[in-house]
Amino acid sequence: MRPSGRNLSDMRSVSIETGVTKHAEGSCLIKMGDTHVLCTATLEDRVPPFVKGSGLGWVTAEYGMLPRSTGSRMRREATAGKQGGRTVEIQRLIGRSLRAGVDRVALGERQITIDCDVIQADGGTRCASITGGWVALRLAVNKLMKTGAITTDPLTPVAAVSCGIYAGQPVLDLDYAEDSEAGVDGNFILRGDGQLIEVQMSAEGATFSRDQMNKLMDLAEAGVSQLVEAQLAACK
Amino acid sequence: MRPSGRNLSDMRSVSIETGVTKHAEGSCLIKMGDTHVLCTATLEDRVPPFVKGSGLGWVTAEYGMLPRSTGSRMRREATAGKQGGRTVEIQRLIGRSLRAGVDRVALGERQITIDCDVIQADGGTRCASITGGWVALRLAVNKLMKTGAITTDPLTPVAAVSCGIYAGQPVLDLDYAEDSEAGVDGNFILRGDGQLIEVQMSAEGATFSRDQMNKLMDLAEAGVSQLVEAQLAACK
Amino acid sequence: MRPSGRNLSDMRSVSIETGVTKHAEGSCLIKMGDTHVLCTATLEDRVPPFVKGSGLGWVTAEYGMLPRSTGSRMRREATAGKQGGRTVEIQRLIGRSLRAGVDRVALGERQITIDCDVIQADGGTRCASITGGWVALRLAVNKLMKTGAITTDPLTPVAAVSCGIYAGQPVLDLDYAEDSEAGVDGNFILRGDGQLIEVQMSAEGATFSRDQMNKLMDLAEAGVSQLVEAQLAACK
Amino acid sequence: MRPSGRNLSDMRSVSIETGVTKHAEGSCLIKMGDTHVLCTATLEDRVPPFVKGSGLGWVTAEYGMLPRSTGSRMRREATAGKQGGRTVEIQRLIGRSLRAGVDRVALGERQITIDCDVIQADGGTRCASITGGWVALRLAVNKLMKTGAITTDPLTPVAAVSCGIYAGQPVLDLDYAEDSEAGVDGNFILRGDGQLIEVQMSAEGATFSRDQMNKLMDLAEAGVSQLVEAQLAACK
Amino acid sequence: MRPSGRNLSDMRSVSIETGVTKHAEGSCLIKMGDTHVLCTATLEDRVPPFVKGSGLGWVTAEYGMLPRSTGSRMRREATAGKQGGRTVEIQRLIGRSLRAGVDRVALGERQITIDCDVIQADGGTRCASITGGWVALRLAVNKLMKTGAITTDPLTPVAAVSCGIYAGQPVLDLDYAEDSEAGVDGNFILRGDGQLIEVQMSAEGATFSRDQMNKLMDLAEAGVSQLVEAQLAACK
Amino acid sequence: MRPSGRNLSDMRSVSIETGVTKHAEGSCLIKMGDTHVLCTATLEDRVPPFVKGSGLGWVTAEYGMLPRSTGSRMRREATAGKQGGRTVEIQRLIGRSLRAGVDRVALGERQITIDCDVIQADGGTRCASITGGWVALRLAVNKLMKTGAITTDPLTPVAAVSCGIYAGQPVLDLDYAEDSEAGVDGNFILRGDGQLIEVQMSAEGATFSRDQMNKLMDLAEAGVSQLVEAQLAACK
Repeated sequence: MRPSGRNLSDMRSVSIETGVTKHAEGSCLIKMGDTHVLCTATLEDRVPPFVKGSGLGWVTAEYGMLPRSTGSRMRREATAGKQGGRTVEIQRLIGRSLRAGVDRVALGERQITIDCDVIQADGGTRCASITGGWVALRLAVNKLMKTGAITTDPLTPVAAVSCGIYAGQPVLDLDYAEDSEAGVDGNFILRGDGQLIEVQMSAEGATFSRDQMNKLMDLAEAGVSQLVEAQLAACK
Repeated sequence: MRPSGRNLSDMRSVSIETGVTKHAEGSCLIKMGDTHVLCTATLEDRVPPFVKGSGLGWVTAEYGMLPRSTGSRMRREATAGKQGGRTVEIQRLIGRSLRAGVDRVALGERQITIDCDVIQADGGTRCASITGGWVALRLAVNKLMKTGAITTDPLTPVAAVSCGIYAGQPVLDLDYAEDSEAGVDGNFILRGDGQLIEVQMSAEGATFSRDQMNKLMDLAEAGVSQLVEAQLAACK
Repeated sequence: MRPSGRNLSDMRSVSIETGVTKHAEGSCLIKMGDTHVLCTATLEDRVPPFVKGSGLGWVTAEYGMLPRSTGSRMRREATAGKQGGRTVEIQRLIGRSLRAGVDRVALGERQITIDCDVIQADGGTRCASITGGWVALRLAVNKLMKTGAITTDPLTPVAAVSCGIYAGQPVLDLDYAEDSEAGVDGNFILRGDGQLIEVQMSAEGATFSRDQMNKLMDLAEAGVSQLVEAQLAACK
Repeated sequence: MRPSGRNLSDMRSVSIETGVTKHAEGSCLIKMGDTHVLCTATLEDRVPPFVKGSGLGWVTAEYGMLPRSTGSRMRREATAGKQGGRTVEIQRLIGRSLRAGVDRVALGERQITIDCDVIQADGGTRCASITGGWVALRLAVNKLMKTGAITTDPLTPVAAVSCGIYAGQPVLDLDYAEDSEAGVDGNFILRGDGQLIEVQMSAEGATFSRDQMNKLMDLAEAGVSQLVEAQLAACK
Repeated sequence: MRPSGRNLSDMRSVSIETGVTKHAEGSCLIKMGDTHVLCTATLEDRVPPFVKGSGLGWVTAEYGMLPRSTGSRMRREATAGKQGGRTVEIQRLIGRSLRAGVDRVALGERQITIDCDVIQADGGTRCASITGGWVALRLAVNKLMKTGAITTDPLTPVAAVSCGIYAGQPVLDLDYAEDSEAGVDGNFILRGDGQLIEVQMSAEGATFSRDQMNKLMDLAEAGVSQLVEAQLAACK
Repeated sequence: MRPSGRNLSDMRSVSIETGVTKHAEGSCLIKMGDTHVLCTATLEDRVPPFVKGSGLGWVTAEYGMLPRSTGSRMRREATAGKQGGRTVEIQRLIGRSLRAGVDRVALGERQITIDCDVIQADGGTRCASITGGWVALRLAVNKLMKTGAITTDPLTPVAAVSCGIYAGQPVLDLDYAEDSEAGVDGNFILRGDGQLIEVQMSAEGATFSRDQMNKLMDLAEAGVSQLVEAQLAACK
């Protein structure tokens, strides 16, 4: 039995509100249950040095948590003087995942930065960031297409969900209560067409079998299809 | 004529939504026109070393801006490796201002940390942070009073507004368009009873007379009374 | 009664010795009673990026305290790895204040950096830094005028003094014994012609009325006139 | 055809030399082809605060690359002032992986730190670090068992190997030439009994199917058994 | 011929003014020609952890240069975020040298921190810091002896001078003009009784013979005796 | 009697193995008894800004210790966020010493960076780094000469050895057991022709006489000749 009363293969309710900030070229507030992440896309003409002159575009991401997004207050990373190891890992993952859904030739030599800031955390913030980040990216690219700056759509949907073994059972979309108990959990990032972009499965103080791995993959594939539907609905 | 069409002594519309995050002991989203700040209060039993054993309470504040709260994206302070000078100045001001409305004996030896994170900026973020921060503080203290942990109410209302000389005229509650043009601007922090807590008037590339200073003070007094009303209404 | 035996409207004795270091383009050692600050002006042809090509000059300031300028030794900021919040606030104030007395067109595209290093502290170091900093600036500009590099004098005098409510009375030029007890204190930066540049009044654990504010302003105006006289005498 | 001429399912030659430094409680130099990593184990009685008093042991890891372990010299992280994102990610992975092979109750309240320093890099340094790190850990634990400080062996073998899709083919144990071309690569960390500890598969600018994922898993299982044999042989 | 017109074995004129700051337990302003260093001694009852409980005293030193102590302005180390390599080297040298003149048993378990801040630089700042630092130390220890906190005098004089090969000739007490040209220069730290504490001779882009080394030693011995006389005279 | 049983004027056995890493332009593993240092030379066409356009070459060095190169594990400098004072001092010394054996005109406008990483420490790591660093430098320069990029050999041998007063006796090449007991120790860096490059003699809690200094110099001269022989043999 899951703490939330959900069935093993139930995701939390998803809502994606777009246009939540007036300055960003694209933005949304994604809610996966009680996990709320504000995602914004910033469009710039300048690109990083390693891309310059290549004609290719670049998509990158940064991630942060508000100090009181969590049950006990976390120290602000700006006062700590650096981003922690977990933050760096997550933002690298978000950027890498979103780039897998971008045709960088079609995007052209410009950069889009996706900022994912967790307003309220209840597990699965990195997956929500990827799913919501793609929506912000989509909206920013839509602007480029409306003005004719881009003529071929460079984007394929990308979404992410976590799965894990909780109380011996494979479950979809772990919330914090499950995540803190689960011996095994994984993040699955897929494209809208079901191709895999990144799989990270990890056991802390436990192990898992190939059979369990396959069951988690099945759950993830089902979860991501629902998320892609929600993304496309939000961007209409 | 003001860019927004407001009269010289008009404030922007104010809204204060409370209870916006489930983890914090007190929280609100304050909107002063297009300036939106999320304020949370965190209650802790531990106090800083310089207070320990004194029996007195402590209130402190931290401030941050989301990278794309502004027209062009700002570098995240956590990646820059430190809080900038402006951030440090502002969060010291918020903490000092709120403490002026706290009876530290009545609060007892506990600490409340107010986090003010700017979601969207359009001028006056420090004043909105103080006004909203007081609401978060009020709500956290209410919890203490409900449980009987505190028996005497330690709080007096504190609110803040900016005024400045725009196009030669004294105006109330500068928005970004005005702020970036104003030769003189000031922040006025007052208690609900009209007593002054902090006055900061500053001219960049200009000066002002005592007479102008007095006119700005008049506007500020009027503005703060409206804000205190909004605070009290939100906390009911 | 003030700890030093001064009357309410008495400043400490002021001395400004110029030419105290052979390398700087302008320098002075300002003593406001037991507060001693070494101020130097460095003239450079390069300007910061945001000024480049504008034809305008730039004046900036940095502030520091020697570790044993105070009653107990303070940690050296260079070993702490960064300037503290108070330092950053003060040096921004010094720079902003001095720029209010500079005609940046007449100065031409060059930068003058004012370094204010506190040798011995007894309250009012930021005000002494502004007053002494202006003298260093004046001397450096004099060199430019002597060589004909500048033909119009770009400077108006700028000086600063602190006032506060000590033992219920408004007093001029707080020393450390008063400053650490005063519930309200303020820094007043004025031009030689009496125009206001910056007013910062602040109450820690207290408040003040508009009437008190006006009394402090009166004291400040009187104090600054004496300081401007001392500045001009020193620069002769 | 692989650049090295190896068959698709061939690992590079593995050598593990133990006892390479006189100070460490356990040490080895592992060579996976031209990738050489020095691994040391440091045994300490003190444990991190979050373990203190629990009676449980702790195993952690740090990772570094010598500046000229690579084709072009990398900046030393100590001069850069921090560990880069990649370093942090890798050392967290090494620690987490090794802990999955440790019975922390049997280890008792002590800490073992595994340092993995890359002397020469040719791809697969994180996997070599885990495999060699386990050997250093084994040797340090052997000392504890010899002295009777520990009576139940707390260790199960842990080893890691990378696999990827190179030129459209699934290959085992990527060297640098392959790694820099592969669209998909993964790190597979397994226990000696075939249970999975961590799986990380990632596509940069590409995607992969579940079928490809399964082929890589097959290769990894075969590779890890050979590595566990080499570990056990080295520790005899 | 030396740029200053001095003879080869002439030191610059030395002046040591004591009691220059009211807060420090000991202080002096030492001038070696145009090199001016403010030295203060801070006495504390707490000692560093590695001394605690040993009954022994500790003497340590910190060094800094005011930004415009030099011909062109140097970046403030506090804004650079750390002390440079040269600063660290020098302050370690000062501390080590002064400790060689201290009977740490007689001093008892207390710490004295010597701060040496260069007000104006013209070569030889580290030697002036040691010589002046000893005077500050002497004065602080005198206070301890007056109050009876210490009964045996723990101090022997320590002084330092630089020598070098300038224009092919061994010269005493290099000023900046000589220092920047000298192929070989050395710092010689001696006790008042002629015993050596530290010798550092270094050639940048040159070498020196044992014979030259001996000539520099002769000069240094003569120079240090004069400095010790000046120290003792200043402390009377 | 020395702890190792060596005679007063015996060096530890020296071995220098070259070509130990495939990426570096020059490399060696130097062993002075149980002190093992890996030295690599990196050749680059770019030079530091202060050399640019001068036609002169530049040689610089960096130094590090692996965390468990010592008896107890040292904190990794990359996690501490900076190089310690000792590290900075040592790497500046290595660079300065090696440059004294380089004809920078003959080298031409290119940079060679020598990295010295201590694998195992038993005293004298800075001297071993200089001696081994020269071998790496020699090998990198040989490559330049083979290709004809350089036609005049820019190098003279440079080697270093430590000496000290141990148990009242002057001894050559201190190991850790001696170094930690010696009241006086020195580092002597000489060219192959016997000219002195740098002499650093230092007493911690002790002093030394000129006579002792001369005895240490005699030992050092003898030691360095043996080291230069070993260097030349290794480079054949």
